Amino acid sequence: MTAVSLSQSQSLNIPPRGFPEAEFARRLTAAQRTMKACKVDALLLTSEENIRYFSGFLTQFFQSPTRPWFLIVPKTGKPIAVIPTIGAVAMAQTWIEDIRTWASPHPDDDGISLLTQSLKKCVGGTGCIGLPMAAETILRMPLLDFQRLQDDLGTVEFVDATLIVKSLRIIKSELEIEKIAYACACVSNAFDLAAEIFHQGQSDVEAFRAFKIECLKQGVDDVSYLVGGAGAGGYEDIISPPSGRTLQSGDILILDTGCVFDGYFCDFDRNFAFGKSGDLARRAYDTVYRATQAGLEAAIPGASCAELYTAMQSVMSRAGALDNDVGRLGHGLGMQLTEWPSHTEFDETILEPGMVITLEPGMSFAPGKVMVHEENIVIRDGPPQLLSRRAAPDLPVI
Amino acid sequence: MTAVSLSQSQSLNIPPRGFPEAEFARRLTAAQRTMKACKVDALLLTSEENIRYFSGFLTQFFQSPTRPWFLIVPKTGKPIAVIPTIGAVAMAQTWIEDIRTWASPHPDDDGISLLTQSLKKCVGGTGCIGLPMAAETILRMPLLDFQRLQDDLGTVEFVDATLIVKSLRIIKSELEIEKIAYACACVSNAFDLAAEIFHQGQSDVEAFRAFKIECLKQGVDDVSYLVGGAGAGGYEDIISPPSGRTLQSGDILILDTGCVFDGYFCDFDRNFAFGKSGDLARRAYDTVYRATQAGLEAAIPGASCAELYTAMQSVMSRAGALDNDVGRLGHGLGMQLTEWPSHTEFDETILEPGMVITLEPGMSFAPGKVMVHEENIVIRDGPPQLLSRRAAPDLPVI
Repeated sequence: MTAVSLSQSQSLNIPPRGFPEAEFARRLTAAQRTMKACKVDALLLTSEENIRYFSGFLTQFFQSPTRPWFLIVPKTGKPIAVIPTIGAVAMAQTWIEDIRTWASPHPDDDGISLLTQSLKKCVGGTGCIGLPMAAETILRMPLLDFQRLQDDLGTVEFVDATLIVKSLRIIKSELEIEKIAYACACVSNAFDLAAEIFHQGQSDVEAFRAFKIECLKQGVDDVSYLVGGAGAGGYEDIISPPSGRTLQSGDILILDTGCVFDGYFCDFDRNFAFGKSGDLARRAYDTVYRATQAGLEAAIPGASCAELYTAMQSVMSRAGALDNDVGRLGHGLGMQLTEWPSHTEFDETILEPGMVITLEPGMSFAPGKVMVHEENIVIRDGPPQLLSRRAAPDLPVI
Repeated sequence: MTAVSLSQSQSLNIPPRGFPEAEFARRLTAAQRTMKACKVDALLLTSEENIRYFSGFLTQFFQSPTRPWFLIVPKTGKPIAVIPTIGAVAMAQTWIEDIRTWASPHPDDDGISLLTQSLKKCVGGTGCIGLPMAAETILRMPLLDFQRLQDDLGTVEFVDATLIVKSLRIIKSELEIEKIAYACACVSNAFDLAAEIFHQGQSDVEAFRAFKIECLKQGVDDVSYLVGGAGAGGYEDIISPPSGRTLQSGDILILDTGCVFDGYFCDFDRNFAFGKSGDLARRAYDTVYRATQAGLEAAIPGASCAELYTAMQSVMSRAGALDNDVGRLGHGLGMQLTEWPSHTEFDETILEPGMVITLEPGMSFAPGKVMVHEENIVIRDGPPQLLSRRAAPDLPVI
């Protein structure tokens, strides 16, 4: 397949921020349809991304763990925000009309009585509340407050609503894809300047810093996530911050970044050799590059994530790859750095147009040496569309 | 106001990264002492900051919600890490010796059986497990998995361990303070360059971007948090991202940032007027500046957060401040953007040397106009030490 060419950084079109109300109306209708089928009377959402998905409420303020935030999706009508007063002005900028607030932090009732009362009105005394409780979800409120909420709601039942949220969020709209594509394009531009940004004798701390600055200059809002590693002939660990090590001839450097535009992530990595590259690393790079190529060919509607996994893994196995510790060969992305699905041998999720995923084959090629490669794509009718600019076919040497 | 030349920033001493093992040993001993007093046989920690506090494990990888991570603090001996294989190499760099891993993601047992078995060994069949469950804590694992863990542990009891963790983390060591102080110094340097960074005719998106780049250049690792607002004669909302508005004469701009060095946050804001400043805004700025001054005078060991609140609030009330929606006038900070305590009328936490807090008086001074001011300090024997460079006494005009 052919990489979709992206224009130069100067001519990148910056997507509009936010979404038209129709996007939220569509999400709501779809959720309420599934809720009806599952006999769920209301969804209770507590995490940043789920609240944002149904409201458009975008703030970094969730980094403060002090205050809980709640959004109720009732079985009919628009979502109801039950939030600290500090968020009232910002929430009023969204399409949400029913905004209920309490003064937070509060010493003994941090929104729980207001939430209880709001939920009771939605579900009655014996209704069913859907709450995301399964893999890759987190209840973002103190556990004691949740226990109190359950007690106060009495006979109301809580059921797992992960699937309701997941089945919607896993398929991105064109407006969502546009934001991810833009983040990918900015970071692709930054990686293309690698030879100017990175050099031997530079500490990896400074290399990371210079790359973050370049990504911002290219147009992303935030460099939320930048991890990686460097080592002679290869790196061992891909989730650490820089160590202070000085980059030197013979090193392989990986940078893996999740940059954000308007609340949407890209997530891909690039590898670079300094001065020279060893045979083993070059061959490993070639293997993961070819595994990605196999993934690109397999990533069509109707294929399962397990099949996608097998397509990539078989290339690496044939090349004699040792195991790797990542546990999967890619995943969904969007409002979060990683989202469902996972490319593993057990994930039977069927690929559909609009799914945005990473292809991330990784392998150990020597004791303590791994090689990981990653691209971001969107599933289309037919072949996928590359969102990241395809990496070089040979390990780049700086 | 005068821009500080960059040469000054170059002479900032960059603190060493990480901590000596003695720091973790001290934390562990203190935790185990309190655990013994509270009859808690083991702590179960699931959130990034608590795991990091006892292990030194620092990674941005927690931004991926896919995998749970666990650290057990037993009643004797070093903590035990129960983590996905992807983290094994990085965890082995810390002082933790007992590292147990499972291949994650897993379709039906994402670490729960390994965790159950590890906890049982620590607490026996009828022991007591401490878990942070109260205000400002989050259980970072799927709720269904927690329910399964409870079922599998049978008669083992879970009790709230928030106080055990909070009482330790609320007092910072000199090595922790050094990291926060450095982040504060870098951001103070960046704010001192405001007149070069911000200008009329600039969109607030570009203003935010330029400021992020400057903070990175000054030496922070990440600009995790940057929110603010601008408006003619004042702003209304302090937790939003930039809106795309063009900065113009008569605007007041606030930027509130949590920048990170080696996993430790600063958190303070600065206000700027463009072209000219109105009387109301100037007076409001003067009021919050004086409220901060009152806070600086009140922030001594033995005073309560409630007293600190009153010292600041009374300055604003005397000046005719309307209410504000923030709910408190400052808070702790450190490994998180905000931590315990809160400067409210109900928080009776007694200030002690080593507490790092913000002073953050805020007030409404006209309908839809707020003014917020913020400094970062550390409580010392006697007067507090400013970590942020004190804001200008008069509203700076650019």
